[in-house]
Amino acid sequence: MSTVEQVRKAAEVLTGVARRTPLLTSPFLDEIAGRRVFLKAECLQHTGSFKFRGAWFALSQIPAEQRARGVIAFSSGNHAQGVANAARAAGVPSVIIMPADAPALKIANTRALGAEVVLYDRETEDRDEIGARLAAERSLTLIKPFDDPNVIAGQGTVGLELREQAAEAGIESADVLVCCGGGGLTSGIALGLDGTDLTVRPVEPEGFDDVSRSLRSGGIERNNRMSGSLCDAIITPQPGDITFPILKAHCGAGLVISDEEALRAIALAFQRLKVVIEPGGAVALAAALFRADQIEGDAVICVATGGNVDAAVFARALDTLDA
Amino acid sequence: MSTVEQVRKAAEVLTGVARRTPLLTSPFLDEIAGRRVFLKAECLQHTGSFKFRGAWFALSQIPAEQRARGVIAFSSGNHAQGVANAARAAGVPSVIIMPADAPALKIANTRALGAEVVLYDRETEDRDEIGARLAAERSLTLIKPFDDPNVIAGQGTVGLELREQAAEAGIESADVLVCCGGGGLTSGIALGLDGTDLTVRPVEPEGFDDVSRSLRSGGIERNNRMSGSLCDAIITPQPGDITFPILKAHCGAGLVISDEEALRAIALAFQRLKVVIEPGGAVALAAALFRADQIEGDAVICVATGGNVDAAVFARALDTLDA
Repeated sequence: MSTVEQVRKAAEVLTGVARRTPLLTSPFLDEIAGRRVFLKAECLQHTGSFKFRGAWFALSQIPAEQRARGVIAFSSGNHAQGVANAARAAGVPSVIIMPADAPALKIANTRALGAEVVLYDRETEDRDEIGARLAAERSLTLIKPFDDPNVIAGQGTVGLELREQAAEAGIESADVLVCCGGGGLTSGIALGLDGTDLTVRPVEPEGFDDVSRSLRSGGIERNNRMSGSLCDAIITPQPGDITFPILKAHCGAGLVISDEEALRAIALAFQRLKVVIEPGGAVALAAALFRADQIEGDAVICVATGGNVDAAVFARALDTLDA
Repeated sequence: MSTVEQVRKAAEVLTGVARRTPLLTSPFLDEIAGRRVFLKAECLQHTGSFKFRGAWFALSQIPAEQRARGVIAFSSGNHAQGVANAARAAGVPSVIIMPADAPALKIANTRALGAEVVLYDRETEDRDEIGARLAAERSLTLIKPFDDPNVIAGQGTVGLELREQAAEAGIESADVLVCCGGGGLTSGIALGLDGTDLTVRPVEPEGFDDVSRSLRSGGIERNNRMSGSLCDAIITPQPGDITFPILKAHCGAGLVISDEEALRAIALAFQRLKVVIEPGGAVALAAALFRADQIEGDAVICVATGGNVDAAVFARALDTLDA
């Protein structure tokens, strides 16, 4: 089980390496939400998402000799870039297994960050088999996207920062809304905020609310499908075996928003906060703005988890400003 | 004459009021520029531009009884919002004189920040006469956009932050590129960086390079026209009487870029740094990326001065990504 102590250890290791991302505000967003809104702009983290934190801390915890042989990860998106960048900064090789039909730009970016990208065909090849073979051949260490105590501890450093930043902003109690996929960040932040009156609540897109349903039923629930949402960065089959018990012990009820609301939140973040958020990174802000009746207190904190959005999707979001 | 001591005093007054904006980086921008690129994201300041700093410090220096009667400013853009927000935070009335043909959204924003907006007709009315009359009738204090020692000192706090942030990032010497209009920010940063090996250089749009030409000739040169650039936020007739001597004493040669290059810089900041920059706030980054041959050293710092850009202009910028 991950602990607050592990999160504190991760914070030490990440000092001067990860960015301490700012907590942003706008009176215009406060007006829409009917309370003070604070956005933790983790889209400004290295590689444009929080994933760098967990990747770096997990990597730092591998014994030196083993680490030197390199790391391996499966991802078509933010985790790929986070691991590639962390490995590059640590001077060790990385292999990232990506689907051949992933966006060309993401493949190019991951390569440009120094990773060896191995592509597989989703229809005919088994990525786990490819990964296991490569890991065995080259003695690579797997860095999982969320269900790993060190990854959770690394992401949890967002929670420790929020603890300090909330105190600086005079926030004593608030809901902390976190865009939630497998629950690595959400559970990590919950540990980082343990013992405070800041209550973490996962936010998911409609139709992909496995965590919200799992929290209600008390057991792990699965999504029925894995595609069909703009918020692709946070779509996972189900909460993790390690993350779910932490979520269950520490989090408040989940919130659910629509893709259209995510686009409107992206547009408002552009207009009022001057940050770029991807759809999956905007669901927490969307909930703060458009689910105000499900939130309590005079302040709400939302974590903008990533900013890796295509120009075409961003332009769609901007179109909502005229509506 | 403004001094480093005034900038330090402004920094004390602004502590906990202005945001300490982050210094952002991306290996992809380093690659384009051929050196390390650091972006001071002042677009993340309150009201989306650095203008809040100078407005707040200038306001704080008005004797309390006089301040309580209120302040007045002329502006169609960032200075308007900076002054309105500072006055609101200080609990004093503000009157902003804006042209009636200013964008409706900027007028609405300035009003929403609590200012009384007085509109005038650019063709038939004299804004200075309107301002002087209102100021006299209500005993309002004018806050100038740049040619004022306190405004310069407030903007100069960006320089003090850069001093610390450069040291943290291990930058010993570098050109510091600043988007330059009347020179309030540029001269303030130059004061804030006095005694370091960080050399401030103003950046302007093509055809509106009054500061660059003034630095070359040694005397104040004027622009031939006041419209026709996308970078409207930094178009002024000429450098200020107070700012120019500071610029002349402290700055390196100016740099000039095109509107098209500003748009490309906006798009790259979107893609690589996840921040929103307006055209006038992007000229420094554009120079870092596209005028690399006119810059020396292994690192360059650019100040992104504002992010108040219309969705339509931003969409135009994003279109450059496919080119």
